[in-house]
Amino acid sequence: MTPLHQRLFDELERFPLIDPHSHINPHAAASKTLADIMGYHYYTELAHSAGLPKSKIESPDIGPKEKVGRLVEKVADLENTAQLDWLMDLCRTFFGFEEERITSKNWEKLYDAASAKMAQKDWEEQVLKISRLDKVFLTNDYDDPLTGFDTRRYVPCLRTDDLVFHFTKPGTRERLAKATGIEVGDSVTLRKAIGALFTHFVKHNAKACAISLPPSFTPRPVDGLTVEGILRRVAAGGDLIPADAELLSQHVFWTLAEHCAEHKLPFDLMIGVNRKVYAAGVYQGQDLFDQRVSLIQYRELFNAFPQVTFPVSVLAQTSNQELVSYAWIFPNVVTNGHWWYSNIPSYIELDTRARIEAVPQNKQIGYYSDMYKLEFGLPKFRMYRRILSKVLADEYVTNRRWPEERAIALGQQILRGNVERIFGV
Amino acid sequence: MTPLHQRLFDELERFPLIDPHSHINPHAAASKTLADIMGYHYYTELAHSAGLPKSKIESPDIGPKEKVGRLVEKVADLENTAQLDWLMDLCRTFFGFEEERITSKNWEKLYDAASAKMAQKDWEEQVLKISRLDKVFLTNDYDDPLTGFDTRRYVPCLRTDDLVFHFTKPGTRERLAKATGIEVGDSVTLRKAIGALFTHFVKHNAKACAISLPPSFTPRPVDGLTVEGILRRVAAGGDLIPADAELLSQHVFWTLAEHCAEHKLPFDLMIGVNRKVYAAGVYQGQDLFDQRVSLIQYRELFNAFPQVTFPVSVLAQTSNQELVSYAWIFPNVVTNGHWWYSNIPSYIELDTRARIEAVPQNKQIGYYSDMYKLEFGLPKFRMYRRILSKVLADEYVTNRRWPEERAIALGQQILRGNVERIFGV
Amino acid sequence: MTPLHQRLFDELERFPLIDPHSHINPHAAASKTLADIMGYHYYTELAHSAGLPKSKIESPDIGPKEKVGRLVEKVADLENTAQLDWLMDLCRTFFGFEEERITSKNWEKLYDAASAKMAQKDWEEQVLKISRLDKVFLTNDYDDPLTGFDTRRYVPCLRTDDLVFHFTKPGTRERLAKATGIEVGDSVTLRKAIGALFTHFVKHNAKACAISLPPSFTPRPVDGLTVEGILRRVAAGGDLIPADAELLSQHVFWTLAEHCAEHKLPFDLMIGVNRKVYAAGVYQGQDLFDQRVSLIQYRELFNAFPQVTFPVSVLAQTSNQELVSYAWIFPNVVTNGHWWYSNIPSYIELDTRARIEAVPQNKQIGYYSDMYKLEFGLPKFRMYRRILSKVLADEYVTNRRWPEERAIALGQQILRGNVERIFGV
Repeated sequence: MTPLHQRLFDELERFPLIDPHSHINPHAAASKTLADIMGYHYYTELAHSAGLPKSKIESPDIGPKEKVGRLVEKVADLENTAQLDWLMDLCRTFFGFEEERITSKNWEKLYDAASAKMAQKDWEEQVLKISRLDKVFLTNDYDDPLTGFDTRRYVPCLRTDDLVFHFTKPGTRERLAKATGIEVGDSVTLRKAIGALFTHFVKHNAKACAISLPPSFTPRPVDGLTVEGILRRVAAGGDLIPADAELLSQHVFWTLAEHCAEHKLPFDLMIGVNRKVYAAGVYQGQDLFDQRVSLIQYRELFNAFPQVTFPVSVLAQTSNQELVSYAWIFPNVVTNGHWWYSNIPSYIELDTRARIEAVPQNKQIGYYSDMYKLEFGLPKFRMYRRILSKVLADEYVTNRRWPEERAIALGQQILRGNVERIFGV
Repeated sequence: MTPLHQRLFDELERFPLIDPHSHINPHAAASKTLADIMGYHYYTELAHSAGLPKSKIESPDIGPKEKVGRLVEKVADLENTAQLDWLMDLCRTFFGFEEERITSKNWEKLYDAASAKMAQKDWEEQVLKISRLDKVFLTNDYDDPLTGFDTRRYVPCLRTDDLVFHFTKPGTRERLAKATGIEVGDSVTLRKAIGALFTHFVKHNAKACAISLPPSFTPRPVDGLTVEGILRRVAAGGDLIPADAELLSQHVFWTLAEHCAEHKLPFDLMIGVNRKVYAAGVYQGQDLFDQRVSLIQYRELFNAFPQVTFPVSVLAQTSNQELVSYAWIFPNVVTNGHWWYSNIPSYIELDTRARIEAVPQNKQIGYYSDMYKLEFGLPKFRMYRRILSKVLADEYVTNRRWPEERAIALGQQILRGNVERIFGV
Repeated sequence: MTPLHQRLFDELERFPLIDPHSHINPHAAASKTLADIMGYHYYTELAHSAGLPKSKIESPDIGPKEKVGRLVEKVADLENTAQLDWLMDLCRTFFGFEEERITSKNWEKLYDAASAKMAQKDWEEQVLKISRLDKVFLTNDYDDPLTGFDTRRYVPCLRTDDLVFHFTKPGTRERLAKATGIEVGDSVTLRKAIGALFTHFVKHNAKACAISLPPSFTPRPVDGLTVEGILRRVAAGGDLIPADAELLSQHVFWTLAEHCAEHKLPFDLMIGVNRKVYAAGVYQGQDLFDQRVSLIQYRELFNAFPQVTFPVSVLAQTSNQELVSYAWIFPNVVTNGHWWYSNIPSYIELDTRARIEAVPQNKQIGYYSDMYKLEFGLPKFRMYRRILSKVLADEYVTNRRWPEERAIALGQQILRGNVERIFGV
């Protein structure tokens, strides 16, 4: 880092953040052992990809310490990755780990140090404080009661993948009936049930609706009449041909967008994932993508709902320019973080540069952690801050000769200000 | 900038340019008020995207000063963008603006200073001189009389979108009949009319034919016989099914290419735009794109017309490698500038690096302004020169140890020499 | 280069490499005259693209010296390219050429100096030694006898494009019959013939099977029964409709994969080339691509053959993120070099950064030369080492504060260690 870059980075580290997308379980937000950390799919899938058989880490009878030991055997093959750099940063910061590498010789000491820290009563508080996280958005199943935790700290978000893409599965409908008291048999009851979900979520401080979408999906306004027969077949336990399943998905999706409008909730779109491409992969390490996707597929949606804000994440890095351009033209399209396979430093830097050059600064949500355990907020946001501060230093302070404070203010808006305003927190 | 970078940049600023593509109105080339400048679609669309209602800037009863005042309210949200950097550069250079930002407090003074400058009788001359622009290519409607201006300074270019994609609209054919004296009723009269346009344009010093194309378009040799029935239906005011409209577009396009060959005109292809994607957007702020496009769609065209030079612009940055590769293989394919959504510094740099590494240096047209008002030539070409001089400094002087003069000569060829040779000006 | 970058580069230059993909003719590996070097398709196609008529370099009656003279006329237009930089590096290193440029004034001296060097009896040995190449993989036709050369130095590789995509051509089947003694008339004899090829190749130390694939191809398990009628039609000299030709290609391809599994050979997939796009182009300068391709097309293959390692090369730079992501998830997918239109410094750097950030370090094959003549190994690998050492310096030594030796070890693994392990040499 140049001294300028370091100064901007330090300033961006100084203020607390709101994490607008995570998979935190608010009832067990922090880790209990290093296995919670090294069991993150990024490590299991990379270790598996590097040669570790799935059975060695996924048998139910493997204890947490044993699991970490087995993963450590493969760590040397992953040391180059950005993901392992998160792990090192996290272990240094939280557990005082000072070795250059995690090895078969030193991991047990690290494991025990981590366990000791995690056993402290206020560990969760410590992590949030050290990580400078004020609030963390969740990803809640639609039948989550949303009780037993502080929804001002852990902000609910209604996740809707199952409703849109797995409505034909009996479990989806049973859970919906149980959560809302409404048996869906036609389009009227479907709309009622969805309305009940939104009412429940908004009552519990939900600040967004969210969904991940396959590259093939194109939202369209499919009305209740069109799916009436389809819904009855589903209710009767019948199968759907693909064209009808598509219509039903489009209908449910459009109904969700209508409820976002009604309840003034932003609708997070996470575009581009193909599920279970590698079905024999480890847990959560099976999904991939097809880069042949376009935001033109969302044209009708963006036009139909000018009153709904769509924070859009794209999985393929090749989609970033479309995202930049659609956010530059459509008032209701906002750039949102750096998702999954695009969440590595070189792509974050390319994408951040393009966004900051062409999207209004009030329409960029810089980053979210996507984390399952609180400890990952720190290294992930730090990676992003390192890149953002570099871009600010190069582009604004050096090239455009902005005063440093002005560049820092831009960074603050992208890191925090826009999250507050766009989600209304 | 390093000292080396600065030296090269200064050298590239020293010589005058020919702008090979703009939308300048030669009868009103320079601006009259700051509203002509801030009314550029880049500012209206970005301000609208940032939250300014369209009605606040597009009602016909808003005067120019009022319009600027309303746009200034939103300027703070756009300060990060490359487009606003053009505005600042332009205001500093032409109007002596020395403030760090344009605000509600200082914009009126700027407005008045600009008006005073623009009122000077030789303002147009001043702008051209300060901008170091020798000639500027236009984008002329096919029915433009091309009179009343100096065609050696403002070089005509035959724009053909309407002929290819809107031939079924009565207005298109009426304007064609009026311009050529030929009523198109079949393929023979169509060819005659197109021939008349080319003759008219070439007589008035036109140096290129140009068209923008949607991602879905694939040129094919569709002969007159094939479209005979279609043309009669059109002449009779009938509707076309999409397949017939496509055949007609392909026929007109191919006929244009044949006339480019006959009249030895380069055919500028601007590939990849979808029109009116956001129909409620501001004027000229409604178009977007679908990155799923390939130059393989132009395979037949490039093979069929070896004698026609095709300066190709691509809208999607993801198309740049195809452009590089097709220009590297096809003698008649030339890289042309950085278009619209790809015209931001980070993409220009990526694309410039790839082109300069792999396309023969006599086949690269570095940049065009695409401007509507003369004042934009300066900041836009300067942005490009800043990037080009950086690439020349890094790649040739530093890495390959070329003498600086040799790197500068390469820059001259890309900035000016190739424009002269390829368009024959 | 910074001093750090230089130190890492020097270290990466110090150890010998194994080139895992080339088109070397082991019976005439080194060049005889400068025409062998400047006749490389990179120079003929670029010179042709820059304006040199094909006839001026491809008439059979042009002697080598005359050919070089004609190419030199166009060299000035190519001086900017990375490809010409290879030529300059090569001429400096091997022939003591010290001029800044190759011109009509100095080329004959260079030609003669090269001829003198190449006439030395041990020229081939000298080139290998100076280039620090231990072994070079070949690309062998399936009917190559594989005799008359040292297969430990020039490692055979079974190239299978003709079998998969040109099986309907009589020549393909005749050559197969001659090589194996098996007349293919149905799926059983086809399998036998392919088995015979693998046995022959493995006996002669082959270490890989390889194929280049068009963007449209999707492997599928098509069994013998499905193609029985098709094979009979082919054997009877009949034509195939495209759907049947596709089935046959898929059947042959799948059968090859099965034999890779049986013989434990990695299967190099080179994905994305369209052949003869510019049919009037110079020899080997006619192929291009369509970026609209996805590794999702290989989903079924990667799942079906977990025991086969697939070193994957992609032609489109826009495919690199998919390659990174598929290699990060699938244990049997390995990133392989920088192919053809992606083999230019700016793309190599982008792609190397993304791979090294997200793919386990034991799954990256850094580079192969793809060369036809031995002299190109040196400048091509040197270009790659320059980029790799820069990435190692920036990312690991500077950002992550690794000791230099550790970064060098990572470079060694990517440059050499993985080639040894993955191909078993």
